[in-house]
Amino acid sequence: MGGIIIKNISIGDELLIGQVINTNAAWLGEHLASAGYQLDSALAIGDSEKAILDALHACMDADLVLVTGGLGPTADDITKPTVCKFFDTELEFCQAAYDNMVSIFNRRGFQMSERNRGQTMLPKSCQYIPNTYGTAPCMWLEKEGSVFVFMPGVPFEMKGIFNDELLPRIKARFHSVPYAKRVVMTTGIGESFLADRIKEWEEALPEFLSLAYLPQHGMVRLRLSGRHEDADLLNATLDNEIEKLKPLISDYIFALQDQLIERTVFDLLINKGMTFASAESCTGGNIAHRITLIPGSSEVFRGTTVTYATPAKTKVLGVPAETIEKHTVVSQQVVDAMAVGVRNLMESDFGVATTGIAGPSGGTEETPVGTVWIGVASSLGVVSKCFNFGKDCENVINCATIMAYEMLRQAILSHTENATS
Amino acid sequence: MGGIIIKNISIGDELLIGQVINTNAAWLGEHLASAGYQLDSALAIGDSEKAILDALHACMDADLVLVTGGLGPTADDITKPTVCKFFDTELEFCQAAYDNMVSIFNRRGFQMSERNRGQTMLPKSCQYIPNTYGTAPCMWLEKEGSVFVFMPGVPFEMKGIFNDELLPRIKARFHSVPYAKRVVMTTGIGESFLADRIKEWEEALPEFLSLAYLPQHGMVRLRLSGRHEDADLLNATLDNEIEKLKPLISDYIFALQDQLIERTVFDLLINKGMTFASAESCTGGNIAHRITLIPGSSEVFRGTTVTYATPAKTKVLGVPAETIEKHTVVSQQVVDAMAVGVRNLMESDFGVATTGIAGPSGGTEETPVGTVWIGVASSLGVVSKCFNFGKDCENVINCATIMAYEMLRQAILSHTENATS
Repeated sequence: MGGIIIKNISIGDELLIGQVINTNAAWLGEHLASAGYQLDSALAIGDSEKAILDALHACMDADLVLVTGGLGPTADDITKPTVCKFFDTELEFCQAAYDNMVSIFNRRGFQMSERNRGQTMLPKSCQYIPNTYGTAPCMWLEKEGSVFVFMPGVPFEMKGIFNDELLPRIKARFHSVPYAKRVVMTTGIGESFLADRIKEWEEALPEFLSLAYLPQHGMVRLRLSGRHEDADLLNATLDNEIEKLKPLISDYIFALQDQLIERTVFDLLINKGMTFASAESCTGGNIAHRITLIPGSSEVFRGTTVTYATPAKTKVLGVPAETIEKHTVVSQQVVDAMAVGVRNLMESDFGVATTGIAGPSGGTEETPVGTVWIGVASSLGVVSKCFNFGKDCENVINCATIMAYEMLRQAILSHTENATS
Repeated sequence: MGGIIIKNISIGDELLIGQVINTNAAWLGEHLASAGYQLDSALAIGDSEKAILDALHACMDADLVLVTGGLGPTADDITKPTVCKFFDTELEFCQAAYDNMVSIFNRRGFQMSERNRGQTMLPKSCQYIPNTYGTAPCMWLEKEGSVFVFMPGVPFEMKGIFNDELLPRIKARFHSVPYAKRVVMTTGIGESFLADRIKEWEEALPEFLSLAYLPQHGMVRLRLSGRHEDADLLNATLDNEIEKLKPLISDYIFALQDQLIERTVFDLLINKGMTFASAESCTGGNIAHRITLIPGSSEVFRGTTVTYATPAKTKVLGVPAETIEKHTVVSQQVVDAMAVGVRNLMESDFGVATTGIAGPSGGTEETPVGTVWIGVASSLGVVSKCFNFGKDCENVINCATIMAYEMLRQAILSHTENATS
């Protein structure tokens, strides 16, 4: 496709002894692709001068080299001196890096240490790129036509710098081949069943498009993507193909963009000016945790309760002790009472409840590990269903959380239909 | 240390567009280290002949090259023809690979396809290594003193082959140097301050040991590791150094093994037969979510409440509306009342509460984004502290969660001291 060559180098012994999985490389690959570039290779090496020098030399055929890691204040970080050697330069004090560090320390109310002062020494020939997320600086250097960018390895710092500062600079410098993608989010159907359902459509796709199945706990993300110099044609073709796909799997689609289901629910509720609350047993606060990662969540989310103590369940949610005793905790009667109870307590439009056995122990013959009751209460009443999500504890929690959001989404939609009909 | 040079190459476009995170490299690194070897680099490349040939050539300085991926039955796999080119050989039918495949298909009750038959054609000069986990073969080839092993990329197949077949062959062929490590988990102190505190100790470490700082949201993992021909000496030296390290940073250590802080708290509470509950505002259920990922958590965790609705806060936790009005929601008075309130409500030994501004909006001059009050209530009263965790919403939630667990850990320890004094 005539694009530029981009390579990634991740520095850190921890990547080579299995202590840390290299997620930065995948993240960079994905975000470069979205911006119309293509990552050609990703190399992980240890914190050694020789390894770093060898890797930098091996990347001289690339147009752009993105290096992550090895820029912390501690002694195991030898990247900066090695960079100086490679670029035949030396360290000098950088006022902009110093000012940035002072402002970070002021904000956090800490004193700067001598080590942090050392982080404001940068290679003479580098262009300083601000990192407002942490104390490690980001550096842009050039050698014989290749651009080398050094970023900290801490993922949230690297991501912030890349989005805020780096991508605009890369776009200004390098030609990109238009890339576009469409994402369709599905839940309630397994990967292979989905594949069978859309087989004919998939096989008839134009050659410059490719489809990826990205299964995750309880959902499958479909990504249709391609690169083409004619961006209009590319986008029109993508839209056309998605229109053909939609009717084939309409029951399972919860979003036509790359977003989590809690985001879909958040947007729906914001639009309608409505709220929800949750009462979580087996999901253990994960429904609340997921929605509260969305900035502004408190506009639609009133709160949650996780009550393993039966007295609290009765006192807080108003679930009658007799109901628990008669039907057991993992039952339709209890999940219904929890959903109604939390809706009343939090004065929300919808109440979502989960009760189940995440495992590994606690299962019985009648109610095996993985059994989860989910209920959604609204002014129209309660809808509840029973599922089994298998025997892996974390998987049960995640699948139950996603299904709870899916049932909430359905409830919001039927609520609106009923309200307007 | 005179060890052999080992390199890993992972083949697959999916690794370079963010579709799949390369977990194989980390897994191989960890298992090689435990076996007394050291992975020197891990390279991910796409499914292209040129990329594969370049990568193989670049590894001619290694003693052992472990290649994963690119051996599946689908059309995008071009590894095998490229291998033939590199080793100057051609494909021929391999009876052992065929027999293995027949037995796998019989076990699964499927018919073999033409595509699968193609998988039994292997490079003439290779040594076939059985894969009882799937249909892709594993191959061992040599060139100019370097050993190249090609394995399937599907993680469970790769792991199975490595453990069953490959590691014994590697051990028979290459000398290994014993490796050992110790991990110390710290929180409440930044990476650079920690480094200052243990500078002298670190500088005096024997040459065959190395220290790595692995910072993560709100904590720093210290890893002291090394390789030495004398395994007993290595282990004794590691233990001795850790004993010297402990008093230097005793206030910040929460575990002497690689574990999360909620696990430490879980173990402490199980030992003492005690329980806790949480009232979460800015952490939004994350304290509950983290502990409920531990199987058996309900033995120590009584529940949580997340209450954004002020009436619910008053009704459920008993936080007086006047306190909220007078001091605002993000205040010591409110966090104290929440901690005490949830402890009473859930009838637990400890009550942990958080209230703060995770951002991005909602900050004021007096209470900027990132401000978090954390309180822990017990029968001895309430301890509460104020923090600022910066402006990234997810980071604030994670740091506040870890600090809440740290304060809970401290409270459990002082509670025990007081109870026994």
